[in-house]
Amino acid sequence: MNELVFVGLGLHDEKGISLQGLEETKTADHAFVELYTSLLPNFSMERFETLTGKKAQVLTRQDLEEQNGARILDAAEKGKTVFLVPGDPFIATTHVALRIEAEKRGIKTRIVHGASIISAIIGLSGLHNYKFGKAVTIPFPENTSETPYNVITQNKKLGLHTLCLLDIKTEEKRFLRINQALAQLLGMEQKKKQGTATIQTIAIGIARAGSNTPVLKADTIENLLTYDFGDPPQSLIFPGELHFMEAEALIALAGAPASLRGAAK
Amino acid sequence: MNELVFVGLGLHDEKGISLQGLEETKTADHAFVELYTSLLPNFSMERFETLTGKKAQVLTRQDLEEQNGARILDAAEKGKTVFLVPGDPFIATTHVALRIEAEKRGIKTRIVHGASIISAIIGLSGLHNYKFGKAVTIPFPENTSETPYNVITQNKKLGLHTLCLLDIKTEEKRFLRINQALAQLLGMEQKKKQGTATIQTIAIGIARAGSNTPVLKADTIENLLTYDFGDPPQSLIFPGELHFMEAEALIALAGAPASLRGAAK
Repeated sequence: MNELVFVGLGLHDEKGISLQGLEETKTADHAFVELYTSLLPNFSMERFETLTGKKAQVLTRQDLEEQNGARILDAAEKGKTVFLVPGDPFIATTHVALRIEAEKRGIKTRIVHGASIISAIIGLSGLHNYKFGKAVTIPFPENTSETPYNVITQNKKLGLHTLCLLDIKTEEKRFLRINQALAQLLGMEQKKKQGTATIQTIAIGIARAGSNTPVLKADTIENLLTYDFGDPPQSLIFPGELHFMEAEALIALAGAPASLRGAAK
Repeated sequence: MNELVFVGLGLHDEKGISLQGLEETKTADHAFVELYTSLLPNFSMERFETLTGKKAQVLTRQDLEEQNGARILDAAEKGKTVFLVPGDPFIATTHVALRIEAEKRGIKTRIVHGASIISAIIGLSGLHNYKFGKAVTIPFPENTSETPYNVITQNKKLGLHTLCLLDIKTEEKRFLRINQALAQLLGMEQKKKQGTATIQTIAIGIARAGSNTPVLKADTIENLLTYDFGDPPQSLIFPGELHFMEAEALIALAGAPASLRGAAK
């Protein structure tokens, strides 16, 4: 059967895949994997192949973006093909074009979902999902876009939280860190003066969501700048208005200062 | 070791759990499960127990909400305890208080994430994650809250998409359907007249996200009202401004009218 199944690998290692994802891989004629859209800190190709009994071809950004995933499409025209992707397959927007192209060629597509960084970070924080506004990615400092600052500002005006992913270039092993992202936002604050990211502003840093040892710390930007979050991947949340249960969660789970209670409703 | 591990079950059946989640369950001294915060349409307790070799105690809303999860906390004080939860454990906000209480009692807590309805629906739609604003749940008609209408209106003004979960009462086997939700929003439109939900408005209905046969249909509300989405669970997206790749995705993957191209940027 010619079919293309997108399978999520989850967040941390080869055990993030679901039982269904494992079965789909075992029964596939062809298996491909990409490991550049997110960092899976402890993923081992060798252990993955032992688990699945399948050799999976590792595809680069070039294979996917410049060659439009031709190798995957050609394989899927001949038999059942799985494409293994970090996280939940379409949260990084990169692979939608591949799915559309497959459908246009008459190849059936399916998704076997995995844990996504978005819901993992929201879940870890204890903040309420329906109080998050638009999310944003904070780029490396060579990109001086004002978008992240503006998104956080707009969400705060609406009382909403902002989830900030930090940019990564896995090929170069470059991962934006929480203190670098905060330094950029402080720089933007000096210019735009909206009170969005001052040294007194409370933010939440999250490192290694999806691992057994995530680090979560809610504090003023001033304190977070020198906090040691350890290895990547790292993310940030800028809280909007806090419900009292959200404040309790940040105090109990993220070591937030107890004074946060006073700001909650 | 006394420890409480929250494990996500994913979206559809007993194979939505990750390999790590399966291992944590196998090695636990005590296992509890709740199946009321989301519908797992094809989950079988019997098959789950065969997979894990563990008897898991099924907890009701009353056990968790009125008894504050006392059975789970008591077990976790004695040994390793897993609490299995549909989706990704903290996306329904229900269990945060339990986690806080465990930490206050000195019980270490961890999360093994699962696929969440939020990222699954976003992924299925092909829409860009960072273009979604605040999400909202549309309640049953006996609740006449204007919140869903107002959230969609506000997001549209900002050019953002709105993810709408539809209310469920699993204990009563009641699941709000797409056509009921749309009828409510049309009623609100008559009252509020913001142009948010007219019969010509394009929306996207999604049924059974996470199954092998999800149904996705993008069309005018007029047409969606009579479209047969089949069994629950069902959800809705109200798109904001569409990028041209998003319009292509809705046409290719959700059968949207080709005229959508004209509205995209």
